Amino acid sequence: LRIAIISVGREILRGRVLDTNSNYLARELTALGHQVVRISQIDDIREEIIWEVKYAASSPVEVIITTGGLGPTSDDITIPSIAAAFDTPCFENKEALKIVEERYRYFYEKGAVESPDLTPERKKMACFPEGAVPLFNNVGAAPGMKWEKNGITIYSLPGVPAEMKYIFENHIKPDLEERNIYRERFVETPCRDESLLEKYISDFKKRNPDIYIKSVPEKFGKEVRIKVVIGMRGDREKIEELLTSLAGEFLKSIREPC
Amino acid sequence: LRIAIISVGREILRGRVLDTNSNYLARELTALGHQVVRISQIDDIREEIIWEVKYAASSPVEVIITTGGLGPTSDDITIPSIAAAFDTPCFENKEALKIVEERYRYFYEKGAVESPDLTPERKKMACFPEGAVPLFNNVGAAPGMKWEKNGITIYSLPGVPAEMKYIFENHIKPDLEERNIYRERFVETPCRDESLLEKYISDFKKRNPDIYIKSVPEKFGKEVRIKVVIGMRGDREKIEELLTSLAGEFLKSIREPC
Repeated sequence: LRIAIISVGREILRGRVLDTNSNYLARELTALGHQVVRISQIDDIREEIIWEVKYAASSPVEVIITTGGLGPTSDDITIPSIAAAFDTPCFENKEALKIVEERYRYFYEKGAVESPDLTPERKKMACFPEGAVPLFNNVGAAPGMKWEKNGITIYSLPGVPAEMKYIFENHIKPDLEERNIYRERFVETPCRDESLLEKYISDFKKRNPDIYIKSVPEKFGKEVRIKVVIGMRGDREKIEELLTSLAGEFLKSIREPC
Repeated sequence: LRIAIISVGREILRGRVLDTNSNYLARELTALGHQVVRISQIDDIREEIIWEVKYAASSPVEVIITTGGLGPTSDDITIPSIAAAFDTPCFENKEALKIVEERYRYFYEKGAVESPDLTPERKKMACFPEGAVPLFNNVGAAPGMKWEKNGITIYSLPGVPAEMKYIFENHIKPDLEERNIYRERFVETPCRDESLLEKYISDFKKRNPDIYIKSVPEKFGKEVRIKVVIGMRGDREKIEELLTSLAGEFLKSIREPC
């Protein structure tokens, strides 16, 4: 599956927050055998979100994952903006409202909030487009969203990393597990100079057109041994063995000095 | 100035590398008083780079900064792809070639590379569009690029963080320093619940329409004291004092419990 990730939040664009969410998602999705084709970080402005979701939906992807902007404050507008990108309104989702109510009651009983009431700010978190499914959040209060629309599956996750991870692990990962997966392996070469190593890489790539192979840039230095990364797609059970044999074959093809 | 940042490199999309470059640039550019409006991470595929640069150039920005893809390997294609996005070829830039030659001679003398020769892979790093200016790189070998095109200033930096930072500090920062700047301040409130704090924020925003104010999401908890961030634009010399007085005024407006 080809996947676009969109992180919503001005704090990222101001450099106050390092977007580790998209890195976590990219790593997990790659390990599941999928292909992240694009990541973007945008402002929590309605038009920007609409524009970006339309841009992603018009590119060749099967899945869009957003993070951020599901909370109770006035700049938390991700879900209504996604709905608007598909010319759809959002309205109170009963199941989502039950989750929000249950979570605030829980936080009230723990003494973490002043009241369990469903204020307008809290109710807002249950505004979903028609057909969207709320995803239970066991860490915070805002439910995530899964929405199948126009042949694309859209997942919306909160921006707080612990909440994002909980919903990914418990709702998205089980959806996206597959048998045929993509895996990568790092291999240390005896070479110090990327520009000399390059010809062994392109020769190897010619003999193995289905693999991905690339050197990992390094600062120059006497002690440097440049690594390459080899990636391929294959059966979950056999892939590690195949990568080991490819790595050995590549190392044998190199002539020093390089 | 409104700025878009584009990080080029498959390693980011696979989750192998956390893109700290864009976070560094966002923080530095914010501190200089500029506004990063969008960050994206894309694959090192010619069409993807062309597409993304065109998309950024068609949005309301004055500056585009790219990182990654300036090295000697076959997937280092950022500068020719940027040139192609503006329907311009790239060709050997004499000044850039001198930098590449000088840098490889230096690394050869240090014993870090096998030869100082200008191989085709190394020459490739000096391929610039007409009118572009190479930026000296004191850490690695690949020169950065500054290119004024169609009213937009495009800066291209290497992806290795130390090289990126060197070129930013020495070439871009002096270009972009301004008197009228944007600054932010964190303020700890006595509140534990974002949804209750929200009305004090929106009231304060109504009285001070030119500022930016937002609560910082937190997990729920008894000991939590929610922070807000207040941002504003003003003269470099007076801005800290103005923020201190705004912060005090905001805290006075809050009624507990919240």
